[in-house]
Amino acid sequence: MVNEVFKGMLSGKSIIRELSEYATERGKEIGYENVFDFSLGNPSVPAAQEYADEIIRMHEEDNPMAIHGYSPSLGNTAVRTAVAESLKERFGVDYETKHIFMTSGAAGALAHALRAVTKPGDEVITFAPFFPEYTPYVKFTGCELKVVPANTADFQINVDAFIEMLNPNVQAVLINTPNNPSGIVYSQETLRTLAGILEEKQREYGHDIFLISDEPYREIVFDGKEVPYPSKYYDNTLSCYSFSKSLSLPGERIGYVAVNPLATDADILAIIMGQISRGIGHNCPSSSVQLGVMKCLDLTSDLTVYERNMNLLYDALTRLGFEVVRPGGTFYIFPKALEEDANAFCMKAKEYDLILVPADNFGCPGYFRMAYCIDTEKVERSIPVFEKFVREQYPEALA
Amino acid sequence: MVNEVFKGMLSGKSIIRELSEYATERGKEIGYENVFDFSLGNPSVPAAQEYADEIIRMHEEDNPMAIHGYSPSLGNTAVRTAVAESLKERFGVDYETKHIFMTSGAAGALAHALRAVTKPGDEVITFAPFFPEYTPYVKFTGCELKVVPANTADFQINVDAFIEMLNPNVQAVLINTPNNPSGIVYSQETLRTLAGILEEKQREYGHDIFLISDEPYREIVFDGKEVPYPSKYYDNTLSCYSFSKSLSLPGERIGYVAVNPLATDADILAIIMGQISRGIGHNCPSSSVQLGVMKCLDLTSDLTVYERNMNLLYDALTRLGFEVVRPGGTFYIFPKALEEDANAFCMKAKEYDLILVPADNFGCPGYFRMAYCIDTEKVERSIPVFEKFVREQYPEALA
Repeated sequence: MVNEVFKGMLSGKSIIRELSEYATERGKEIGYENVFDFSLGNPSVPAAQEYADEIIRMHEEDNPMAIHGYSPSLGNTAVRTAVAESLKERFGVDYETKHIFMTSGAAGALAHALRAVTKPGDEVITFAPFFPEYTPYVKFTGCELKVVPANTADFQINVDAFIEMLNPNVQAVLINTPNNPSGIVYSQETLRTLAGILEEKQREYGHDIFLISDEPYREIVFDGKEVPYPSKYYDNTLSCYSFSKSLSLPGERIGYVAVNPLATDADILAIIMGQISRGIGHNCPSSSVQLGVMKCLDLTSDLTVYERNMNLLYDALTRLGFEVVRPGGTFYIFPKALEEDANAFCMKAKEYDLILVPADNFGCPGYFRMAYCIDTEKVERSIPVFEKFVREQYPEALA
Repeated sequence: MVNEVFKGMLSGKSIIRELSEYATERGKEIGYENVFDFSLGNPSVPAAQEYADEIIRMHEEDNPMAIHGYSPSLGNTAVRTAVAESLKERFGVDYETKHIFMTSGAAGALAHALRAVTKPGDEVITFAPFFPEYTPYVKFTGCELKVVPANTADFQINVDAFIEMLNPNVQAVLINTPNNPSGIVYSQETLRTLAGILEEKQREYGHDIFLISDEPYREIVFDGKEVPYPSKYYDNTLSCYSFSKSLSLPGERIGYVAVNPLATDADILAIIMGQISRGIGHNCPSSSVQLGVMKCLDLTSDLTVYERNMNLLYDALTRLGFEVVRPGGTFYIFPKALEEDANAFCMKAKEYDLILVPADNFGCPGYFRMAYCIDTEKVERSIPVFEKFVREQYPEALA
């Protein structure tokens, strides 16, 4: 019979997808250029040209069996080696080939990393605001996702609430920096504090607690800064990466898990993830896509548009009376709504063709997310509309 | 902590992989051309040229965002429509777009199809001989895999044993035609009998029993015959396909599930599989690979080498006294070993650099599998070696 659990999920449609579909429909009525669609985190800059060049070259010149043959279950060995070397050079962590497991994007990376270090019934902790897909990701491992409430002052972590939530049943902690939806980059201090707490609790509980670090926005960072690399701060770290945002290849489903060489069982964790693949039907990302990204490991698409858009929006929102923490990276900004109910706020904005996502599902009621991976010209045109919306609906904010 | 279940699996290495690794190592000693490696089912003919041409064209001409953007979670809509139309035209089943779910190869297809129609604790029945990976595929859904013993007379299904094994706890039946490892194509009669039994049992138990049909070898069929299409015989069928063998693209991980339009919940099963994806981290095959195969749906690589190799081996094995059912398709042949213990038989063959896979893991002790997706020239050279092996080790077979 058709599985009732999954059937039941069909009614719980994603608010992001619903708003995005609305924006598309509305675009058919008034022209999509007139819909200020900030709903979806779909990269708006073209893929790196070097990627296309390499794909064309290999399909013209290389032996088809070498391009399209079965990749080993942990990923193409040359690609894994190249990833290890690139990370080692960049972050100073001594990765070797055996620490890298190639995956279908960050979703695939998280699916394997979570299963590798938990068993059904365990608890996994994450921090609000968080990407809503973490809920199904964790739920289908059989674990329970516990959410530490947001620290809305700066969207670093809420240390006291975190410590209170820890217990011997917690086997993994899931972080995301730079963060979707807040755009915040965890500071060195945050990572040091987190590591210190986890080390202490490992000793106290007598078992490992793994840090699963979701890093698809690692390369989208502003003001010329570097993102502190979580694995440098805590040995039991599994770094989950995707090339979706850095190379603008979200549809290609390509990423990896990098196991910290000092983690418990570091030498076998990638092999364990290979076993997990047999059960969940993953069996490696595309062989040619693996070879393509191997040539672009230290490149990115031209990501400058995101910083330009962020500055425009941050200035405008601040001027309009919004409470908003300035993003350090990503292509999201996360202001507080101008009324308590962010859903009601976003419904009103929709009347102005401003498509904003209320953050209840991100574990942070009262806030909303804007994805500004759109053309700068459209961001510029959205600002007077935003102004009109606030002036008409929330005049007190402008006072 | 590292998951002990998966850690425990590390010792249970696949015999196929072990033999294949041995063959590679041995090749370094004596030259791989001198190792008669029949271990791995890796296609030996190049990918269809039309596929490479289309990949090159799109990377040269198309908008990168259209090629590499997020694909909807059920797959690119145009690709799904094209698959539905191609199947409808070819097999006369009235598929529409909504019945197609794009997957990462057949492994991904089976992972989703199994989860969609079972729940943990259910039973799934398959027929020996069977592809050993079915064991982890089913195990990690939480279901139990029951295996109907082989009908070694012709490797069609063992009807009596099947009926005896059925009970109200069985929610799905998993078949594979053309079959890995036997090479046998299920006859129309077999499929009609199977359908009749399942229809009767559905009525008796008062619930659906889904037929999950694994069909990666559908296009590799001999003597100019057509493979009877299981979904034509039984409404509650989910056809699981991969382009790995027909287009020689195993590393690209591209396939689909086609839901029979007359199946229970046919209109929502693909959507349910989309929900399952969120839990197991699959999230679609590569967007560019989907677009590439869309141009090749009714094409295949040049597959004639497989039939040529089969005929050479079938004639030789028969002449040497082997009991062997002539394959109707695939690139496998499945003879009875010349002693009761097929492991011992294959170990002796290894001394002659004949790499054969004993079939205990395929649920059929006493038999062995040969994958003849290798150059015909090598198949030809293997025959005198086979003859020497049999003459020296099993002279009574030649009598």
